[in-house]
Amino acid sequence: MIITLTTDFGSKDPFVGIMKGVIYGINPDATIVDLTHSVPAQDVLAAALTLRHSLDYFPRGSIHVAVVDPGVGSSRKAILIEADGSLLVGPDNGIWSLALATRAIERIVHLSNKKFHRQPSSSTFHGRDIFAPVAAHLSLGVSADAFGESLKSFVEIELPSVKTGENQMIGEIVYIDGFGNLFTNIRATDLGDKSALEVQLGELTIGGIATNYAAVASGACIALVNSWGLLEIAANKSNAQQQTGAVIGDRVLVRFLKTNRLGGS
Amino acid sequence: MIITLTTDFGSKDPFVGIMKGVIYGINPDATIVDLTHSVPAQDVLAAALTLRHSLDYFPRGSIHVAVVDPGVGSSRKAILIEADGSLLVGPDNGIWSLALATRAIERIVHLSNKKFHRQPSSSTFHGRDIFAPVAAHLSLGVSADAFGESLKSFVEIELPSVKTGENQMIGEIVYIDGFGNLFTNIRATDLGDKSALEVQLGELTIGGIATNYAAVASGACIALVNSWGLLEIAANKSNAQQQTGAVIGDRVLVRFLKTNRLGGS
Amino acid sequence: MIITLTTDFGSKDPFVGIMKGVIYGINPDATIVDLTHSVPAQDVLAAALTLRHSLDYFPRGSIHVAVVDPGVGSSRKAILIEADGSLLVGPDNGIWSLALATRAIERIVHLSNKKFHRQPSSSTFHGRDIFAPVAAHLSLGVSADAFGESLKSFVEIELPSVKTGENQMIGEIVYIDGFGNLFTNIRATDLGDKSALEVQLGELTIGGIATNYAAVASGACIALVNSWGLLEIAANKSNAQQQTGAVIGDRVLVRFLKTNRLGGS
Repeated sequence: MIITLTTDFGSKDPFVGIMKGVIYGINPDATIVDLTHSVPAQDVLAAALTLRHSLDYFPRGSIHVAVVDPGVGSSRKAILIEADGSLLVGPDNGIWSLALATRAIERIVHLSNKKFHRQPSSSTFHGRDIFAPVAAHLSLGVSADAFGESLKSFVEIELPSVKTGENQMIGEIVYIDGFGNLFTNIRATDLGDKSALEVQLGELTIGGIATNYAAVASGACIALVNSWGLLEIAANKSNAQQQTGAVIGDRVLVRFLKTNRLGGS
Repeated sequence: MIITLTTDFGSKDPFVGIMKGVIYGINPDATIVDLTHSVPAQDVLAAALTLRHSLDYFPRGSIHVAVVDPGVGSSRKAILIEADGSLLVGPDNGIWSLALATRAIERIVHLSNKKFHRQPSSSTFHGRDIFAPVAAHLSLGVSADAFGESLKSFVEIELPSVKTGENQMIGEIVYIDGFGNLFTNIRATDLGDKSALEVQLGELTIGGIATNYAAVASGACIALVNSWGLLEIAANKSNAQQQTGAVIGDRVLVRFLKTNRLGGS
Repeated sequence: MIITLTTDFGSKDPFVGIMKGVIYGINPDATIVDLTHSVPAQDVLAAALTLRHSLDYFPRGSIHVAVVDPGVGSSRKAILIEADGSLLVGPDNGIWSLALATRAIERIVHLSNKKFHRQPSSSTFHGRDIFAPVAAHLSLGVSADAFGESLKSFVEIELPSVKTGENQMIGEIVYIDGFGNLFTNIRATDLGDKSALEVQLGELTIGGIATNYAAVASGACIALVNSWGLLEIAANKSNAQQQTGAVIGDRVLVRFLKTNRLGGS
């Protein structure tokens, strides 16, 4: 059974390794996959976006643990969500809400049953003391019911929305990857005819949508639809973030040069 | 069988991956766990502290390999220690000494039997040529005896000690995690009544011990007992190291405001 | 079956985790090993050098996937090479050429059979959509033939060559590891009698070849033959890159002080 881990713990400390020790102590046959441990510290929205675009690539039935958890030990709940046959374990702080936008939620459980927590439990490291042991017991086939009482809702957070006009669309940079590629909140499916447009970020204007990074000269900036299905501004064999100085939240304008045929291209 | 790896190799190079190749070549069924590979370069004390606070979370019988090894290829010995049913493999430079302070040592073995080393062995990468193959053979059930002759002792290193007075306790920062949380060498069990004290670091004074990071306003500094059982100075949703400029070795003063009831609350 | 992954994806993003999800979805029993994900962005030569010095440590029959792929989605081919019983999967951009210099190539296959690609396939992330699923199907025993038509050659790249004179040898820095150790392109086997020489890098001159880092005083620079069999300039318990300011491509001169006895000591 696959258990994925997504945290903001970074690679400096043994915290992720400790969680794995706890999991293997309960289920020596678990298959643990690191999704990423470099979510920016305490950035729940970045984690939510990462999960939104990653969970689909794992088999149904996988158990996903996410620990970006500035409220650990406070009144925020620890929860488990069952959706489309997969199991999501983490703090109730909105971290799952983007991934769940397209999934059927079957059950929300408050992880209140201390039988499945490490004892003594700390108030600062629920990854080790609650989420890891719960995930390990889930991987052994314990039913979601057993971990606590049902809840009716969970905390939701939202991505900034895209503003759509007749001849333009205004989005923003929502994620910057390790190559310096600038991901916007504008989805490919929003765009229609991809060739008849230009993309503007600050003083940079790019005409049209390229199909791959190598479609322009080395160092030149391009717009393309990336592997998450989002409009992205990149630079061939270079770093668009460094070239443009863009940061998360910067406005991106798409100007449609002809009538936008929805569903076109 | 679990084999954990703790090194200062960082993530830039393939050195950790190479060790895993050697292990899987000997035991394809090993379960390898990265504890951390970001111990500061050649910092044996930081590695020892990491191991001290991590090994307890792994099942009895696990094999732990640590390679922070500035003396590789010199006269420092390569050793194996059996303690409380777990097996510790690495250089004899003190790296295990903090973890072993609370464990019953059953056997210390000099890894002199070249039958279990890769051939030819380098003088610069014992992780690949000695520690990885020894760990892999241990995971197959080879007895500790087989790897070389017994030793009577191993190199020990110590954490700086805490100075305890009637109304105060003087410790220091011994570890700073990736969030910028400042770990001291003062243990929770040393503190007694946690509410009746103040903690001083440079010009920063903090009253009392909080139970979790979210107990104060965003950005504010707090003192708490962390998941390693140590007194820690942190900042809610922020980075205490950046806020205070503190470095490893900085003095931390705990002042008891009433009589300190040992073992209290 | 072992599948190794080598990329320039870094640790910030979930891209490596996503590839693992795809692999486990096809073969839940695969053993996935991260070789490194910190190849400098788009640096095919650095990746080729890493693979050259890593693959030998994995069991015969392993499947190696490498994704340093600035030409993704362009006309560069996706290929599979079978050599000495191991399977190499990645872009046809030279990434395998240093590793293959010492191996018998059995087959080169163009990964044109879309049956083994994820659908829909992106033009920006072949790691997820082509290389991961192909590797997973290979690990299930699918024959290399099945993935596409045979090719007669693959793209080759070369390391800078060493210039050899009667009393000297001129090489250069080709790799700098995370400790700041400076790897040259001069092989131990090129050197002959190791004691009767001096090594020059900029204004630094080092006499002779040491056997290990601790052979000189802390902080002093030494030359040694490293675990890759290459002449390396290092600094005991210190960082040679920081001390010397050297960068990739800097010239390294070896001056032979006596007659160089080939094959000697």
